[in-house]
Amino acid sequence: MTESFEQLWADLAAIGKDPSTGGYHRGGWTPTEREATAWFRDQCAQRGLAIESDGIGNLVAWWEPGESAAGAGSGGAGFGGGRGVGAAHGARLPGVVTGSHLDSVIDGGAFDGPLGVVSALSAVDRLRAEGFVPSVPIGVGAFVEEEGSRFGMPCLGSRIATGVLTPEKAFALQDRTGVSLADALRDNGADLDRVGPSSLLSRMGTFVELHVEQGRALTAPVGVASSIWPHGRFRFTFTGEANHAGTTLMEDRHDPMLTYAMTALAANKQARLAGARATFGRLAVEPNGTNAVPSQVTAWLDARAASAEVLESLLAAITRQATERAERDGTAVEMVPESVSPVVDFQPGLRDRLSAVLDDAPVLPTGAGHDAGVFSDAGIPTAMLFVRNPTGISHSPAEHAEMDDCLAGVEALATVLKELAQ
Amino acid sequence: MTESFEQLWADLAAIGKDPSTGGYHRGGWTPTEREATAWFRDQCAQRGLAIESDGIGNLVAWWEPGESAAGAGSGGAGFGGGRGVGAAHGARLPGVVTGSHLDSVIDGGAFDGPLGVVSALSAVDRLRAEGFVPSVPIGVGAFVEEEGSRFGMPCLGSRIATGVLTPEKAFALQDRTGVSLADALRDNGADLDRVGPSSLLSRMGTFVELHVEQGRALTAPVGVASSIWPHGRFRFTFTGEANHAGTTLMEDRHDPMLTYAMTALAANKQARLAGARATFGRLAVEPNGTNAVPSQVTAWLDARAASAEVLESLLAAITRQATERAERDGTAVEMVPESVSPVVDFQPGLRDRLSAVLDDAPVLPTGAGHDAGVFSDAGIPTAMLFVRNPTGISHSPAEHAEMDDCLAGVEALATVLKELAQ
Repeated sequence: MTESFEQLWADLAAIGKDPSTGGYHRGGWTPTEREATAWFRDQCAQRGLAIESDGIGNLVAWWEPGESAAGAGSGGAGFGGGRGVGAAHGARLPGVVTGSHLDSVIDGGAFDGPLGVVSALSAVDRLRAEGFVPSVPIGVGAFVEEEGSRFGMPCLGSRIATGVLTPEKAFALQDRTGVSLADALRDNGADLDRVGPSSLLSRMGTFVELHVEQGRALTAPVGVASSIWPHGRFRFTFTGEANHAGTTLMEDRHDPMLTYAMTALAANKQARLAGARATFGRLAVEPNGTNAVPSQVTAWLDARAASAEVLESLLAAITRQATERAERDGTAVEMVPESVSPVVDFQPGLRDRLSAVLDDAPVLPTGAGHDAGVFSDAGIPTAMLFVRNPTGISHSPAEHAEMDDCLAGVEALATVLKELAQ
Repeated sequence: MTESFEQLWADLAAIGKDPSTGGYHRGGWTPTEREATAWFRDQCAQRGLAIESDGIGNLVAWWEPGESAAGAGSGGAGFGGGRGVGAAHGARLPGVVTGSHLDSVIDGGAFDGPLGVVSALSAVDRLRAEGFVPSVPIGVGAFVEEEGSRFGMPCLGSRIATGVLTPEKAFALQDRTGVSLADALRDNGADLDRVGPSSLLSRMGTFVELHVEQGRALTAPVGVASSIWPHGRFRFTFTGEANHAGTTLMEDRHDPMLTYAMTALAANKQARLAGARATFGRLAVEPNGTNAVPSQVTAWLDARAASAEVLESLLAAITRQATERAERDGTAVEMVPESVSPVVDFQPGLRDRLSAVLDDAPVLPTGAGHDAGVFSDAGIPTAMLFVRNPTGISHSPAEHAEMDDCLAGVEALATVLKELAQ
C-alpha cells in the first residue's frame, strides 16, 4: 500500500520546517530542499516510477503507458516489469506531466509547490487503485528553484529547461552570500556540461500544475487557471550622500531613504488606483548604520497587472514620482528591470476541456508566476488547477488550505489525468 | 626627529582604507582597528610616552611632569630617564589628557577620531620642540569603540571606564554576526576580570578632545564646544503579515513597509519643524524577499535636539504619526529606546578660558556624541576643540578638513595644553 495523501503530506511537511516561525526555508540546493527532493525520489522509487533528471536537476518520474494497476503499491523492485510494458509500447512517447516544485520562499508556507507534488503522487495512486491503464505516459515532476529565493531568478529550473535562460547567464547568478549557481551545482555533484535545454521536455506533451490559490478569488474547492498576469522585478537604486546623523542639518542632506520611502508609498497608491499589485519587500541599505545618513538604498519592486499596458503605466507612474522626489531630495534614482514576464494565456481549448470535465469548475487568472507559465511560453499545451485558499495568505507560514479542499484537488487532478491519458 | 603632522596623518590614513569607497571600516577589535591601535602604541613608544591601558582597552600614554624637551625625538629607549623625572615629582599626579578614538563608523571618513589622536601626538611634539616643561602630566589617549559601529553602543570604552556601563551588560552585546563583546575581547587576549571602572580616570584631571566639526556651523579654523545636544537611538519595530506579493489584493495586506515609509517621512518633517535631527539610517526587513509582503520591518531612529524638551516632543510626534498610520495599515508599531544621552554642558569656566586663550575662538554646540561627553558626565572637567569642516560632511568617505585648518588645530591644542599644564 502506498501512503494516503494525509500521510504523504505530513511526511513532506516535516522537512525543513522552522520551529520558531512555522515557516519553510527551502532555497534551491540547500540541505532542506535536498532532503525534500530525496523524499520525492524515494516516493517515486516506491511506486516504481522511473526517474529521469536533467542537468539543472529537474525531475520527472514516469508511469509508462499500458502499465496495469496490478503493480500499484508493490514497491520499487516490482516495477521493473511495469517499465518493460511501457517499453514494449515504445517507451519514448510524449505524455502528460503533472507536478510542481519543492523549494520555498524565505520563511514560506507548506502548500506553495509541495501541494502540487504530493497531489500528483496521490492522483497516480488513486488511478492505479481504480485500475486505470494510461495509453500515454504520465509523468510526475518536481522542478528546481521555482521561487528564485536563493538566486533571485524565479522559475530557474524551467527557464533553463526551455532554453529561455542560458547556462552562462544562470551560472553567474549569486546567492546573498556570494555563492554562484555554478558553485552550488558543483557542490551538489552536478555536471555543468549537462546544464541546458532539457531532454525531459521532449516527452512533455501536456503539462498540468496543481497549485494552492494565492489570493481569495477562488470560492469553490477547485478552479482552472485562465492566465498569469504580466509581472516583473524592478531594482530601484536610490543614491545620496552618507553623512553624520547628528550633526548634518536636515537642509544639507541628500538622504536616499526619504526618496525610497516616498516611492514605496507611491507604489502602493498607484497599484490601488490601477487595480494592480506593487510591493517593495526587499531592501539593502548602505552603510546601514544607526548614526549615518545612508549613501544608498537599493529596493526591489515586484509589480503585476492584468495587462502589459496597465503594468507599463503603473511602472511609469511609480518611476515618475520617484524621480520627482529625488529632485527634491538631491538624490539620484535608477531603475533596472531584473526580470519581466509577459502575460501567459493558457491554451483556451485545454482550459475549457478541463473546466468541463470538472463539472464547470470556475476559471480565474492569477498574479503569481509559475513553471506552468514558462512551459506554456515554450509552446507546451499547459493548464493549471487551483485549490481554494480560505485566507488568501501565501508566501507566509500562515499559508493554508483545508484538507477537504486538498483531497478535492487530488480527485480533480486524477480526473484530468484520466481525461488526458485515456 | 618625530614625524611631521602631515607624515603622521598620511601613515595613519593608510590603515584600513577601503580602496573601492575611500572609506574606513574600523569597528572595535577588528583587524584594521587593531592595526591603527598598534600604530598608536608604536608612536607613543617612539616618543618615550609610558602607555597605560585599562581592561576594556582604552589607552593613555603619559608625558610626565618636569620632563624636559631634551628627550623629544630621541626615541623610546631614551625616555626611561624622562619617566624617572616624573616619578621624582610623585608620578601618580593627575594631569591633562587629550586624545580621541581610532575606530570608525561603517565606511566612515578619515578625520572623525584619528584627527584628535594625531593632533595630540603632534601637539606634544610641538611643545617639546619649544622646550616646554609641563608641571602636571600630559596624557595622550585613544578610547575604544567610540562610534559603536560594531556592538551598537556608542562610547563603549569611555562608558565602561566611567562605570555608566557595567561589564555584564557590555559583555552580552553582540555584533551583526552574533559575536559577543566578551568573545571579541577574549579573542584579542583581554582579561575579562580587568574590565570595569578604569584606573586611567584617577589621573584624568582635565580632558580635552580635539575633533573635526561635523556640520558647517564653524566658520573659523578652530572653535570650542559649548554642549552636546541630547540624543538617542530608538528602535521601531513595525509588524504586519507576510504574504504573496503577486496574488494578495492591496486591500487584504498588512504591509509594515508602508507604515515604516510613512514614519521615515514623518520623522524628517518633524525634525525640520523642530530645528532638530531625525534619521532612519539602519533597517532590517523580514523575510526580505522580492516577492513577499514583509512580515516585519525594524528601523533604528537617531534623534537629536537642542534640549530634552524638544527631543521629547519630536519623538512623541513621530511615534504618534507612526501609530496612526499603523492603524490604517493594520500593522503594529513598537518603539524601544536603545540608548538615550541627556544634554552635556561642558564646564563653562574651562570653555571660556580656552576660548580666551585661543583669541576668542567661537563657541558652538554639537549634535554628535563623544567620549568627552561621557567623561564630562562623570565629573571630569572637560572641553572640546573643533576643527572646521568646509562641507559639513561627516561619517562618510567624503569627510574632509583642510590641512591648514588641521595645523591650526594642532597649534590651538598645544596652546591649550600649555595653558592647562604650565
